[in-house]
Amino acid sequence: MVKPNTKSRAVFFVSDRTGITAEALGSSLLSQFEGVDFNKKHLSFIDTLDKANEAVKQINRASLQIGEPALVFSTQINHEFRVMMSKSDCVFFDFFDTFISKMERSLDLKSSHTAGRLHGLNHYSSYSNRISSINFALGSDDGLGAKSYENADLILIGVSRSGKTPSCLFMALQYGINAANYPLIEQDLENTQLPDVLKQYKHKLFGLTINPIRLQKIRDERRSNSHYASLKQCQSEVNRAEDLYHAQCIPFIDTTQTSIEEISTKIIHKLSLR
Amino acid sequence: MVKPNTKSRAVFFVSDRTGITAEALGSSLLSQFEGVDFNKKHLSFIDTLDKANEAVKQINRASLQIGEPALVFSTQINHEFRVMMSKSDCVFFDFFDTFISKMERSLDLKSSHTAGRLHGLNHYSSYSNRISSINFALGSDDGLGAKSYENADLILIGVSRSGKTPSCLFMALQYGINAANYPLIEQDLENTQLPDVLKQYKHKLFGLTINPIRLQKIRDERRSNSHYASLKQCQSEVNRAEDLYHAQCIPFIDTTQTSIEEISTKIIHKLSLR
Repeated sequence: MVKPNTKSRAVFFVSDRTGITAEALGSSLLSQFEGVDFNKKHLSFIDTLDKANEAVKQINRASLQIGEPALVFSTQINHEFRVMMSKSDCVFFDFFDTFISKMERSLDLKSSHTAGRLHGLNHYSSYSNRISSINFALGSDDGLGAKSYENADLILIGVSRSGKTPSCLFMALQYGINAANYPLIEQDLENTQLPDVLKQYKHKLFGLTINPIRLQKIRDERRSNSHYASLKQCQSEVNRAEDLYHAQCIPFIDTTQTSIEEISTKIIHKLSLR
Repeated sequence: MVKPNTKSRAVFFVSDRTGITAEALGSSLLSQFEGVDFNKKHLSFIDTLDKANEAVKQINRASLQIGEPALVFSTQINHEFRVMMSKSDCVFFDFFDTFISKMERSLDLKSSHTAGRLHGLNHYSSYSNRISSINFALGSDDGLGAKSYENADLILIGVSRSGKTPSCLFMALQYGINAANYPLIEQDLENTQLPDVLKQYKHKLFGLTINPIRLQKIRDERRSNSHYASLKQCQSEVNRAEDLYHAQCIPFIDTTQTSIEEISTKIIHKLSLR
């Protein structure tokens, strides 16, 4: 259904490199405006004059088509290409130039104007950490858990499908944190003692919990109409997991209304991991 | 070793929510300055007056300690808390306020001033896509490959340890793209034909390649001194994989000097996946 009052607007994220930062901040700002249909395009790796010319053409074309200047969010560092795009038919949001002079003054230094510093391989050791943390999370997920706990920065515990694996992977990818996981199964929940294998790592534990109705829905998508996915089973597991967290004083977080980005930053903060 | 001329500077990333965007853009700007030792702190989920007061204290303390005002990168949306922090002893980089008025003028709309729109669950369907894409990537990685190719947005192919899995996971996490992978093993490389299971999905294929010396190093960390990790074996596999890509006209990318962010954005662009 076409809403007659919906405005349309072309949006471009432009960058010398991946454009991930331009998109993150641009999307964050756009999310503050409702009732506009934003038609988003990514112009990444604008690192030659030809590509910059082509970008300008695309921006002009989109603005002409919609009848309003496109919004362009830029982390472009190359001065020449940045100026070209800023002069096209658009409203130009310059994340680099807006702040860099203030930073230069404040630090009393000249900036290096080098593209691709953030999402490239410039800081090889931290990049390498992130990759090895991904492998660590995958290894832990494959049941190599017990072996990995020693080297883990933290161990997420929770019932099946409470969000452990995606959270571990996010912490690995984003922060290079070695996050292992331990799935709480029925035997673990018979009392409020920690499973033996976890006892010596209590300080690394963080619990996840989830609304049982939501859990039931997630499990049902996996194994429809199973005992595993029944509401009764989900309620029982969640209740007993929370009892365990309380009894053992393990910090925990409810993942029902919480994204993996929020889960991860909260855990990292709570365990002072950075 | 202490470099006598290295300046020190406290840096804070502040936000009502995760602070991921503040950190991304702030780090991107900081990476333009060399020779300064940036002491970074994250002040996430500043969503109460108490937390805002505590944040101001931390900023003032850090500035006093170093003897230079801290650099504060903010995506804080709450007006009151933002003003409090901007008045602390710091240089305040306001990613929200700097651009939002220009956006309001350009869109002829008022912004909603709602925090947590980007990394929260506000767009549930796209969040849900990302989680299911993570599960998709993990499933594909567990050897469920053949079954998953039908539903894949793309299939990464390459020799063992060329970077397939981390790239698939990043595309899932960041973009909700269903990326499967197929590891090219020796039998697949006996000629330049595609493995049978991939033939009908040729349009979804993207190849990874890697410098053999780098590959040898990565494999050696896994299985030291094995045939698998020998330079000769690495060279042979990489050469034959590239022959296959050329013979079958499969686009491919060298991952040696390329981060998973760069690999992913390049592939997505090339296959027009967004």
